[in-house]
Amino acid sequence: MIINKEHLFEDNKKDLKSHKESFDFLGLKLDNEGHDVAKIITKLKDFQVAIPSWALGAGGTRFGRYSFYGEPSSLDQKIEDIGIIHTLTQTSGAVSLHIPWDIPEDFKSIKELACSLNIKFDAVNSNTFQDQKGAKESYKFGSLSNTSKAAREQAIQHNLDVINIGNKLGSKSLTVWLADGSNFPGQSNFQTALQHTESSLKSIYKGLPDDWSMLIEYKPYEPNFYSTVIQDWGTSFMLANACGEKAYSLVDLGHHLPNTNIEQIVSILMMKGKLGGFHFNDSKYGDDDLTVGSIKPYSLFLIFNELVYGMRNNPQNPNLAWMIDASHNIKDPLEDLIQSLESIQEAYAKALLVDQDALKDAQMNHDVVTCQEILQAAYRTDVRPLIEKARLDLGGAIHPIKAFRNLKVRETLIKERGKNTVATGL
Amino acid sequence: MIINKEHLFEDNKKDLKSHKESFDFLGLKLDNEGHDVAKIITKLKDFQVAIPSWALGAGGTRFGRYSFYGEPSSLDQKIEDIGIIHTLTQTSGAVSLHIPWDIPEDFKSIKELACSLNIKFDAVNSNTFQDQKGAKESYKFGSLSNTSKAAREQAIQHNLDVINIGNKLGSKSLTVWLADGSNFPGQSNFQTALQHTESSLKSIYKGLPDDWSMLIEYKPYEPNFYSTVIQDWGTSFMLANACGEKAYSLVDLGHHLPNTNIEQIVSILMMKGKLGGFHFNDSKYGDDDLTVGSIKPYSLFLIFNELVYGMRNNPQNPNLAWMIDASHNIKDPLEDLIQSLESIQEAYAKALLVDQDALKDAQMNHDVVTCQEILQAAYRTDVRPLIEKARLDLGGAIHPIKAFRNLKVRETLIKERGKNTVATGL
Amino acid sequence: MIINKEHLFEDNKKDLKSHKESFDFLGLKLDNEGHDVAKIITKLKDFQVAIPSWALGAGGTRFGRYSFYGEPSSLDQKIEDIGIIHTLTQTSGAVSLHIPWDIPEDFKSIKELACSLNIKFDAVNSNTFQDQKGAKESYKFGSLSNTSKAAREQAIQHNLDVINIGNKLGSKSLTVWLADGSNFPGQSNFQTALQHTESSLKSIYKGLPDDWSMLIEYKPYEPNFYSTVIQDWGTSFMLANACGEKAYSLVDLGHHLPNTNIEQIVSILMMKGKLGGFHFNDSKYGDDDLTVGSIKPYSLFLIFNELVYGMRNNPQNPNLAWMIDASHNIKDPLEDLIQSLESIQEAYAKALLVDQDALKDAQMNHDVVTCQEILQAAYRTDVRPLIEKARLDLGGAIHPIKAFRNLKVRETLIKERGKNTVATGL
Amino acid sequence: MIINKEHLFEDNKKDLKSHKESFDFLGLKLDNEGHDVAKIITKLKDFQVAIPSWALGAGGTRFGRYSFYGEPSSLDQKIEDIGIIHTLTQTSGAVSLHIPWDIPEDFKSIKELACSLNIKFDAVNSNTFQDQKGAKESYKFGSLSNTSKAAREQAIQHNLDVINIGNKLGSKSLTVWLADGSNFPGQSNFQTALQHTESSLKSIYKGLPDDWSMLIEYKPYEPNFYSTVIQDWGTSFMLANACGEKAYSLVDLGHHLPNTNIEQIVSILMMKGKLGGFHFNDSKYGDDDLTVGSIKPYSLFLIFNELVYGMRNNPQNPNLAWMIDASHNIKDPLEDLIQSLESIQEAYAKALLVDQDALKDAQMNHDVVTCQEILQAAYRTDVRPLIEKARLDLGGAIHPIKAFRNLKVRETLIKERGKNTVATGL
Repeated sequence: MIINKEHLFEDNKKDLKSHKESFDFLGLKLDNEGHDVAKIITKLKDFQVAIPSWALGAGGTRFGRYSFYGEPSSLDQKIEDIGIIHTLTQTSGAVSLHIPWDIPEDFKSIKELACSLNIKFDAVNSNTFQDQKGAKESYKFGSLSNTSKAAREQAIQHNLDVINIGNKLGSKSLTVWLADGSNFPGQSNFQTALQHTESSLKSIYKGLPDDWSMLIEYKPYEPNFYSTVIQDWGTSFMLANACGEKAYSLVDLGHHLPNTNIEQIVSILMMKGKLGGFHFNDSKYGDDDLTVGSIKPYSLFLIFNELVYGMRNNPQNPNLAWMIDASHNIKDPLEDLIQSLESIQEAYAKALLVDQDALKDAQMNHDVVTCQEILQAAYRTDVRPLIEKARLDLGGAIHPIKAFRNLKVRETLIKERGKNTVATGL
Repeated sequence: MIINKEHLFEDNKKDLKSHKESFDFLGLKLDNEGHDVAKIITKLKDFQVAIPSWALGAGGTRFGRYSFYGEPSSLDQKIEDIGIIHTLTQTSGAVSLHIPWDIPEDFKSIKELACSLNIKFDAVNSNTFQDQKGAKESYKFGSLSNTSKAAREQAIQHNLDVINIGNKLGSKSLTVWLADGSNFPGQSNFQTALQHTESSLKSIYKGLPDDWSMLIEYKPYEPNFYSTVIQDWGTSFMLANACGEKAYSLVDLGHHLPNTNIEQIVSILMMKGKLGGFHFNDSKYGDDDLTVGSIKPYSLFLIFNELVYGMRNNPQNPNLAWMIDASHNIKDPLEDLIQSLESIQEAYAKALLVDQDALKDAQMNHDVVTCQEILQAAYRTDVRPLIEKARLDLGGAIHPIKAFRNLKVRETLIKERGKNTVATGL
Repeated sequence: MIINKEHLFEDNKKDLKSHKESFDFLGLKLDNEGHDVAKIITKLKDFQVAIPSWALGAGGTRFGRYSFYGEPSSLDQKIEDIGIIHTLTQTSGAVSLHIPWDIPEDFKSIKELACSLNIKFDAVNSNTFQDQKGAKESYKFGSLSNTSKAAREQAIQHNLDVINIGNKLGSKSLTVWLADGSNFPGQSNFQTALQHTESSLKSIYKGLPDDWSMLIEYKPYEPNFYSTVIQDWGTSFMLANACGEKAYSLVDLGHHLPNTNIEQIVSILMMKGKLGGFHFNDSKYGDDDLTVGSIKPYSLFLIFNELVYGMRNNPQNPNLAWMIDASHNIKDPLEDLIQSLESIQEAYAKALLVDQDALKDAQMNHDVVTCQEILQAAYRTDVRPLIEKARLDLGGAIHPIKAFRNLKVRETLIKERGKNTVATGL
Repeated sequence: MIINKEHLFEDNKKDLKSHKESFDFLGLKLDNEGHDVAKIITKLKDFQVAIPSWALGAGGTRFGRYSFYGEPSSLDQKIEDIGIIHTLTQTSGAVSLHIPWDIPEDFKSIKELACSLNIKFDAVNSNTFQDQKGAKESYKFGSLSNTSKAAREQAIQHNLDVINIGNKLGSKSLTVWLADGSNFPGQSNFQTALQHTESSLKSIYKGLPDDWSMLIEYKPYEPNFYSTVIQDWGTSFMLANACGEKAYSLVDLGHHLPNTNIEQIVSILMMKGKLGGFHFNDSKYGDDDLTVGSIKPYSLFLIFNELVYGMRNNPQNPNLAWMIDASHNIKDPLEDLIQSLESIQEAYAKALLVDQDALKDAQMNHDVVTCQEILQAAYRTDVRPLIEKARLDLGGAIHPIKAFRNLKVRETLIKERGKNTVATGL
């Protein structure tokens, strides 16, 4: 299914007047306060977040999975789904492939499809946390960190294969999430495991094209419940430094111990020029992979505040690879992604409203009350009209969720694909 | 110092036009969406939060305390301070006395002062977590739970004394926060400690006037670091039930283990008619006692969403005693309290915007996406114009922090009181 | 496979001398200190822990599952596996069936098999956290708490069916673990959900035979990541009280927020006569379901200290249903269970060594140092000779893991069952 | 008070036989298992832990402090107290001075006193988390990280002064614990704060004598409750690298987020040659500063397992500065320190029993069950006879707590010093 632009245009009509009034009122107010509204809108338009290829189907927990209707059963259909979201939100113009779940069969046709939907191929993801059918070596006791050389080599080769696939599609970065670790004290030698990991990552790094980057994810626990080899940003940063200038840390919001100050990590990594990518989701307990912004929207804003600061003040840091990394258990996955995208744009828009100069002054004067007032003034602003405007300018929907339902997208997908399809992925 | 109403009126003038425009625009929008704006404003006006008598001075941590200038050095001055905040915000029309830190010397004059500032005497707080000079028994190993009968009796009598003091002032409730617990496994017998506590609370309850209520606080840890006798809502609820119908649980936002779903606790206690009071603050790690709304404003909103629901649907639950319970280490305590009060009003206003009927429908249809849309629509609304309106109607400041500074309140207090005064309290 | 007792007897021989020396030395020492060693041994012999029927195969995480060889593929084989463990450890003389994963086809033969292996049928477990093939109603949005009456009734009926099955086998209790909850704020009405749950539990309770008990489990999160209906012991306790005297709380060690003082909960529930069952496992981060005693053995000891105290001092509390509830991802499941059983026995033996009278004295004197000394003296004792003795007396192995390997149990199972069998369960 | 060695000798007599029997039995057993018992005893004897000068008095929480009798009121008396503990335990042969709380008045006499008690001067600690009377600049908004140059320079100079004091006493390292951070989002610029800190540390480093080391502590929160400049090992490690080869990270057990795998951090820092010091304590919730080993003794063992591994396999790492960093609120501080010292020795002795070769084999074979068996076998061993032996050989007490009481130490101290003395410190 491809959304008919005219239908979308029609659907927008009834909300147009209300949108215009809100936007005009807010625009004037922000203008009076000294904001460059047009520039903010432009930044919002330019911000594109990748959708991972496995995110279009229903997710699940270790206790089971409740399937959803009309799931995509091929990579083509997955990219079509991203096209639908992108048409509505105009902010998901990229796909992030997960290999081996979504190896293209016909590279040319998949590139054409993506191109026709205005979707780029962002970072490619390897998978060494599951055994693939027929694989010679098992990852049960680790992949890049395994004490078995054969297992390490298989995992290295898989990453090189993933780079190769990405290269054919126009990707420019490889994301390595390493589940390696241990479930019990004594099971693993921490030093050996890290040394093997460093050495394996260097082997992969050698195979990285010149214009690529390697993004190293960290996570404190799960699926291993005693230790994880790359347990925190410090370890990821150390490994990225060891590999070289094309290696970076990747922050996944859900991959932290309780109460971690994530925005500080983001800020320091950008200062060091080593923040390469970002995975969005939200959580209350652990790596819950909930819809972005559904639990702690102020934290998301604080993180974006650092991202905006870094993008302005840290030229040493590269452009970031943005991706949504959530699991959609009880919502329509497409609606869920739309809600995530809206929360991301909201946090970004609010962060763009922070008066950085006034904040710096207040910080220098130790005027803590004013520092808080400045952040809260930006956060308390209802920025929905700005996001609507950015979408509208690009031909998207004023209210993407409403449009999704009005245009009967899910019903059409079920008609096209049937009820009981199952997407590859977790 | 008492704020001159005319000066305040003058100070408001320059922001009046901008406020009016914002309020008119938002009012119309909400009206169109079916909200009764006048009713919301009325509810905001009626909402009054008590300021504890110890909150007007600088707080501290176990690592020390940085004092602040112009601190109140008597109960009179403390009530004057609350008067200042109340004049500006019109939402802090109550004081909550902490005994023995703030025992009135002259009841008549203190009541007259409070009355003149439109301040009521809310819940009185006992203190059995510190030894008082000359006290016969020590609370080092517990108060109401102590294995020593003499210590328990001293603590019971202290609570009865506090009731007596409160009674003379017009208070109608006693808040019991029990720090009792243990620092090491084996130190305390859990069963005996709880039995003593129940028995002691019943003795206090017997001395409670008919129209009073007893509010039982809970807390998982600190100042005891292994166990706390009343460690959670379940224990507090059990004790309140054992005491009788005038005994209730009191929720302090900072008194929970990491990741606790506090709004669910609030909801269930109201359903059972047993939520008696609420202490506001915010925190990232533990009982950090930070400014309300400074860390997790969405959580505060979700809690208010349950409070609003309960106030509508749970007639079995009494009116709640609201109090700010924060520690003001690095901000001007009065500015800090103003920021807390604004965050409370904001969360309340947003909760009042939740479309409860639509939410119920979506819940019945298992339309999770719409449930989230409804809550977020309310939360994303910029409700500042509503709060400003409520304040203005009552004669307060459009922007309390700005007015506080424009009217040179702290400078005046320092002139009146000197730099090196120290308030009683922690 | 059934372990040949003579082979086991032979295998024990080489360790017999060393065991005897250690036991004699320790026995004399404990005797001198005033302990009744024979009584302790008797208590250890009497302590029997149920193995759940799903625990004999490899578990997994949401990221995948690494299978194990020789897994049981029928209930008969599962009970045989428990028989093997029980023969070696003499402390796992019960099975806890999980329905519908393990519905007996032939009740008579399964009872005869279990009887021949000296295995009893302990608590039966219902499952309303997954949809079963062909089920009319889905539990995607809840079972006993669902807003849909039809879903609730299906879940109630399932529990009644489970009781019926258990009844035919000689079980005397039903364990209800309710995964019901919500993933997003607003998704669920806390009050309605709890009311439905209470009402559903009461319906099940009505169908409970007179000599049965109903055990109500609680858990703060997972598989729902925003709220869980029965989120803590307080809610479980409230529901058990609402149902009646045959309803109890069940504590699963992994079902708590970070840093919860579990031993205090255990103690208070026993004082109230409402602790009905116990699920053993260990964890570092959440409900990690690791081998018992592998992460926090001192916590396990402190919990057993309360259990021993309660079994002595709280006649109002019933006998408990003990069960191991761990997931065996990277170890041989049978070896893993043996390690769990040994840790349980160790903690129990150490708790039996606590000098309760001396502890009470020290507590009364507020001699915190001595309180700690008493607990640590018991904990620091190497109790392995006591456990070996208890096992030997009953015909078990001195060193169960060594015997398991010497007797080539897994090899035999693989020969009998093949490599690629898969057990039902998670 | 100085303990009379003959009195101690007498006191030991009645436990000598029992000790000898236990030691002989255990020694033989360990010998049979291939352990070199004499070598283990030697290692235990050589292990010396510093007592901080502020640890001899009662500590407290932000809610108050319950004083203790006979507290030392001068540095001389504090060193006498350490002498008492060292005489009994023979494992606390060092003092760690905290400046400005304990600046010696007469260097020569204090050195003679310490020397006479066999006590060395270990790392000196600076204090920039409190304002000192008459100080020109305040640390309310930071010290080494302050945006104010004057404040930074004052803090740098203080550290240089501390080095100077330490140098006169024979200390060889400076411990920097930086409380700097922020309480509210926006208060501080993360990047600027870290840059200032790095620059300040480098200035201090320049003043470090050639044979000294600088130990950089980290902590996630408290006394700042939103962010801390040196929040984790990664930041500390980065700063140590920036300063130079004499700069190291220092691990304080209580300075971690919930559930952190501390032993992994220890292991990786040693591999990198950057672990310089260690502060012992225990905790259940946060930086609770409880007696070492009182809450999570198995974790302490796992950490020592890595320390022992590192001391054997990481020659690139320096000798560590060991210190107890606990707060003694409700126990006799000296008894509390003795309990801490015993737990440290216990964990160390057990770690020395781990069969590293067998463990490596099991790790290589992915035999997770055996890995666990090896660690647990060491941990389950009752090593008290080994520790007693080490103490006895050096002239200490078999049972230090019992001796402390039998020799009436506290009573004597009260007689000498009076009841109401108060030690400097927190």
